[in-house]
Amino acid sequence: MLNFAVIGYGYWGPNIVRNVFAQKGAKVRAICDIDPKSLQKARDLYPHTPLTRDYKKILKSNHIDVVAIVTPVSTHYALAKMALEHGKHIFIEKPFTATLKEAEELIKIAQKNKLLIMVDHTFLFTGAVQKIKEIIDDNTLGELNYYDSTRISLGIFQHDVSVIWDLAPHDFSIINYVIKNKPLALTAQGMDHVGRGHENLAYITMYYSRNLIVHVNVNWLSPVKVRTTMICGKKKMLVWDDLEDDERIKIYDKGIDVNKKENIYKLKVDYRSGDMWSPHIEPGEALNKELRYFIQCLTSGKAPINDGHSGLKVVHMLEKAEYSLKNKGKLVKF
Amino acid sequence: MLNFAVIGYGYWGPNIVRNVFAQKGAKVRAICDIDPKSLQKARDLYPHTPLTRDYKKILKSNHIDVVAIVTPVSTHYALAKMALEHGKHIFIEKPFTATLKEAEELIKIAQKNKLLIMVDHTFLFTGAVQKIKEIIDDNTLGELNYYDSTRISLGIFQHDVSVIWDLAPHDFSIINYVIKNKPLALTAQGMDHVGRGHENLAYITMYYSRNLIVHVNVNWLSPVKVRTTMICGKKKMLVWDDLEDDERIKIYDKGIDVNKKENIYKLKVDYRSGDMWSPHIEPGEALNKELRYFIQCLTSGKAPINDGHSGLKVVHMLEKAEYSLKNKGKLVKF
Amino acid sequence: MLNFAVIGYGYWGPNIVRNVFAQKGAKVRAICDIDPKSLQKARDLYPHTPLTRDYKKILKSNHIDVVAIVTPVSTHYALAKMALEHGKHIFIEKPFTATLKEAEELIKIAQKNKLLIMVDHTFLFTGAVQKIKEIIDDNTLGELNYYDSTRISLGIFQHDVSVIWDLAPHDFSIINYVIKNKPLALTAQGMDHVGRGHENLAYITMYYSRNLIVHVNVNWLSPVKVRTTMICGKKKMLVWDDLEDDERIKIYDKGIDVNKKENIYKLKVDYRSGDMWSPHIEPGEALNKELRYFIQCLTSGKAPINDGHSGLKVVHMLEKAEYSLKNKGKLVKF
Amino acid sequence: MLNFAVIGYGYWGPNIVRNVFAQKGAKVRAICDIDPKSLQKARDLYPHTPLTRDYKKILKSNHIDVVAIVTPVSTHYALAKMALEHGKHIFIEKPFTATLKEAEELIKIAQKNKLLIMVDHTFLFTGAVQKIKEIIDDNTLGELNYYDSTRISLGIFQHDVSVIWDLAPHDFSIINYVIKNKPLALTAQGMDHVGRGHENLAYITMYYSRNLIVHVNVNWLSPVKVRTTMICGKKKMLVWDDLEDDERIKIYDKGIDVNKKENIYKLKVDYRSGDMWSPHIEPGEALNKELRYFIQCLTSGKAPINDGHSGLKVVHMLEKAEYSLKNKGKLVKF
Repeated sequence: MLNFAVIGYGYWGPNIVRNVFAQKGAKVRAICDIDPKSLQKARDLYPHTPLTRDYKKILKSNHIDVVAIVTPVSTHYALAKMALEHGKHIFIEKPFTATLKEAEELIKIAQKNKLLIMVDHTFLFTGAVQKIKEIIDDNTLGELNYYDSTRISLGIFQHDVSVIWDLAPHDFSIINYVIKNKPLALTAQGMDHVGRGHENLAYITMYYSRNLIVHVNVNWLSPVKVRTTMICGKKKMLVWDDLEDDERIKIYDKGIDVNKKENIYKLKVDYRSGDMWSPHIEPGEALNKELRYFIQCLTSGKAPINDGHSGLKVVHMLEKAEYSLKNKGKLVKF
Repeated sequence: MLNFAVIGYGYWGPNIVRNVFAQKGAKVRAICDIDPKSLQKARDLYPHTPLTRDYKKILKSNHIDVVAIVTPVSTHYALAKMALEHGKHIFIEKPFTATLKEAEELIKIAQKNKLLIMVDHTFLFTGAVQKIKEIIDDNTLGELNYYDSTRISLGIFQHDVSVIWDLAPHDFSIINYVIKNKPLALTAQGMDHVGRGHENLAYITMYYSRNLIVHVNVNWLSPVKVRTTMICGKKKMLVWDDLEDDERIKIYDKGIDVNKKENIYKLKVDYRSGDMWSPHIEPGEALNKELRYFIQCLTSGKAPINDGHSGLKVVHMLEKAEYSLKNKGKLVKF
Repeated sequence: MLNFAVIGYGYWGPNIVRNVFAQKGAKVRAICDIDPKSLQKARDLYPHTPLTRDYKKILKSNHIDVVAIVTPVSTHYALAKMALEHGKHIFIEKPFTATLKEAEELIKIAQKNKLLIMVDHTFLFTGAVQKIKEIIDDNTLGELNYYDSTRISLGIFQHDVSVIWDLAPHDFSIINYVIKNKPLALTAQGMDHVGRGHENLAYITMYYSRNLIVHVNVNWLSPVKVRTTMICGKKKMLVWDDLEDDERIKIYDKGIDVNKKENIYKLKVDYRSGDMWSPHIEPGEALNKELRYFIQCLTSGKAPINDGHSGLKVVHMLEKAEYSLKNKGKLVKF
Repeated sequence: MLNFAVIGYGYWGPNIVRNVFAQKGAKVRAICDIDPKSLQKARDLYPHTPLTRDYKKILKSNHIDVVAIVTPVSTHYALAKMALEHGKHIFIEKPFTATLKEAEELIKIAQKNKLLIMVDHTFLFTGAVQKIKEIIDDNTLGELNYYDSTRISLGIFQHDVSVIWDLAPHDFSIINYVIKNKPLALTAQGMDHVGRGHENLAYITMYYSRNLIVHVNVNWLSPVKVRTTMICGKKKMLVWDDLEDDERIKIYDKGIDVNKKENIYKLKVDYRSGDMWSPHIEPGEALNKELRYFIQCLTSGKAPINDGHSGLKVVHMLEKAEYSLKNKGKLVKF
């Protein structure tokens, strides 16, 4: 039996608690939040689970194996460091840390203490992303031309970070999961319409080898909610609309064929337009699958796909994007 | 009676001919194309209209008042210059010219010879754009935060220009029409997946005063056709989906209210979410309205909204975008 | 404090329990189900709530004020009768009863014992239906021409009743709520594709005075889920798409104007096509609102809009529809 | 060279003329209409084609091989009879005739004179219907459970017939084409909201052998345009949305499996939910394909699939539906 403590019972914490309880071989042994109202909500649902406002009690407890850190990113490093130093595995909300350096240090401490870190990039465990990875891995799409994601809606404005730190971790973690090679350079544009110094919309462009280009549009100030990703390969093209209940992923047998026999100035482009196919997506709550997988990793000692290194890469990209954004879209190399 | 000659009877030329014939007070007196197949198509539909492969005959003819130039952009300058020098008004396909300098010169010649230039920015005459201009002008949206256009589909790859010169003229002409102030700076990213040196997808970001940001996504290599523009104002937000038969424009009573009373670090953001309203759009073919308006301008001698200056501004933006694209997304000032 | 007992903890019962707990002034004091697995689920979530497999214990208890009956319709009458005879108010799943006669008897018993009956026609408490009632009541649509509902999806086949008894109660309760006058006659067509004697798809047509016609399409065997209702009035037309997150209701300023001046054989029909308007719908869980309202009714002693009489009318229509269905679509009068 | 005369140059006639001219081996030699305005439109486009207001001239002409009758249905019989008696093949607008008897007589005259009749059921020549026929014929869907069509929009109210005679011919011709067996019985409901005695909305239900049920919803008074047909088979299900540019047909690997091993009262229903597939539909104008096929039939002497018998079957169904509609939805046998 793995004993979890959950620090942070605000928006996302309740989902962690519920899904840990749903696992065989795991239990939530403590819930911590500094807000008494949040603790009251926990008490209503889980009257038998010990609650506390003091996270230090949790970290010092001998009965806790895993600490789930579901707090604002600015607190991640300090809490994670203490948890690791007290010999706890950690499950930590995305983004992993506020800086690359913090991420590096946490990874080192975990390695030294032989502990696991899982960064909660929940999207990797959705049926849609699992299917997309499968489709890219088996070369259904062919070599990729571009990846273009739009992740926009009205709200929720964060107080301490730009929209990039809030929404782009989803895209960056998915991109790193399904695209094998690494970004070479990045540029970001955006705007702050509120006057707090944090951009509420941003456009990030990343360049990869072999002419792959990635574009991510994140926006807190959109009248409509859009969660659409287009992945265009040389053989087929894929559209993922995460707001669709059915037909969430569509694969188009569409593309161009370039006739290279003619001279370079007169390359002839032919268009292919065939069937469309929408694979069945396995249902199931992603967070449940993610925690089940985490428990398997804890049992086997095997590093998860969304370990500290994976979280670090996302933080690295966020730092680069934020830097470009604050420097007039300067092209930043990796 | 205004006598038109149409040079270029390929993809768009037939629409010009048909819509000139549909006007009271105008007739097509000559059609010119270098391709005999195109001329045969014209002959089938208009057996009484003189056809020629030699545009010089047309330019020298005393019976022609207006020359419609519906040829590739590389030929615009030479044809237009000759037409103007022979005393013809010109109706010219978008983009106006291949360079800013060409545009400036044509405008001078037209002024000297007291001739009119209309650049065929057809979109300005659609019911949708007319309605959008009305809605922005009467301050329904309030001060604008951003304008974000996606104009993507599969094909048609142009041989001699990037996707920017092909698709962005639509957006730039509309933007210049509905947004009063001018862009301050611009950056563009993109990629060529064919290997001809012409990008087939591009993302253009433009900065305006008062924190207005404009983003244009143009792409020849998309599995799905999208023609969506979002215009977000401080009071209301508008979505224009040009592929919708009904409900082409939707105006959302949505937005944020920023509570400035609190200190700068804790600005409180409240969300407004009210009704949506979709105004009826006047039906009718835009090109027909545009040509009717052109005939009115020719009769009255009044410069059209889409005159040479208007065309020049678009070419200027295209040049800047292309320059940024070829220079790693360099931020270019106007 | 009102003390509830909930009988039936299968598909819908958990929602009742959760929403009773969410009310001020109400508590669930007992949960009953004959299936031990269902009870175990209740135990996991509500370890302090007494559970039982014996509904008689509940009915005899002095500590229970209200019994919520969330069991198959065939058991409604017996359970409700006993509950009423033991002095409990009842909250009962739709459809109210399996026959008109049962409904009449339960109403009588409730009246005699001065107890309230609320039939769980949840849809009446959705923001959408509330808005539709408001729009019809204030004569926005004008006199109604037709009401056409499509309620189709794949599954869930019921074992003991046709699709009419499963899905049409939703439509009938809404229709009775928003349309003031009563149906005059009804006909129903359908088919059983499974061979159990219960139709899995049915089309019901109802005739009202003043040429109002109502059509309801219910189907368990549809590849796509549709929940669309069109309400056409002489002034405006409304479309309610219950699967839309935003823009759930659209009101079209569309219709026809009949020129009565010409002779009867040449009535001229003109078409109106104006703006569309989508009112903001109040969010919130309908069942929560319904139970809050029930508690108000229990406190004030006022009969709810969805009382026994309301439930009886729906059962009456179901009986008529089932009769027509089994008799080759015979036109049945009310 | 086949010489066509076209009688009727109103809404649809111009399409016939244009598409005959587009055929190799056919020419329009005469256009007839009683309305001088219509003739003027023909003159503008086809200055060399003889025009007349007197259809008798056409029927008597020796230079005409085929008469295309594109006039109101009430005139079909008289015009077609004369044309056939003067030795002309006929291409005739749907519905074929106003009564079953007229259709029978025209077929006889054509047979006697060895002439061909093609009824213009254009939909049969669309890529979508061709694909649907292919998919049903190769048993992709399995045995059919139901066919459900919705064909609704605002307008155009016909003066002399109900919506059934206007819109249902499309559905009936398609149904007869893709479903091999014949309807056994029919019932129709509807309403006239204008007061001319012609229903503007109608619901038609048809029963076939082996539990196949067909439902057709036709309506001139709908705020939204819908052209959707669902065809549910025991193996797969198909949805045809004729308003979709892409993905017009979707085939769902969905359905139920009935476990017959259990006793009849407890048949267990399992649900299958697999991939969706949208076949590429061949582009091309249906009327063009239809006329090309007609010319092949005229050349080979082979009866077309949409010959007089095919047209007669549709008229038969229309008569039955109209009879049921006027007789309170009486179930009518074939």
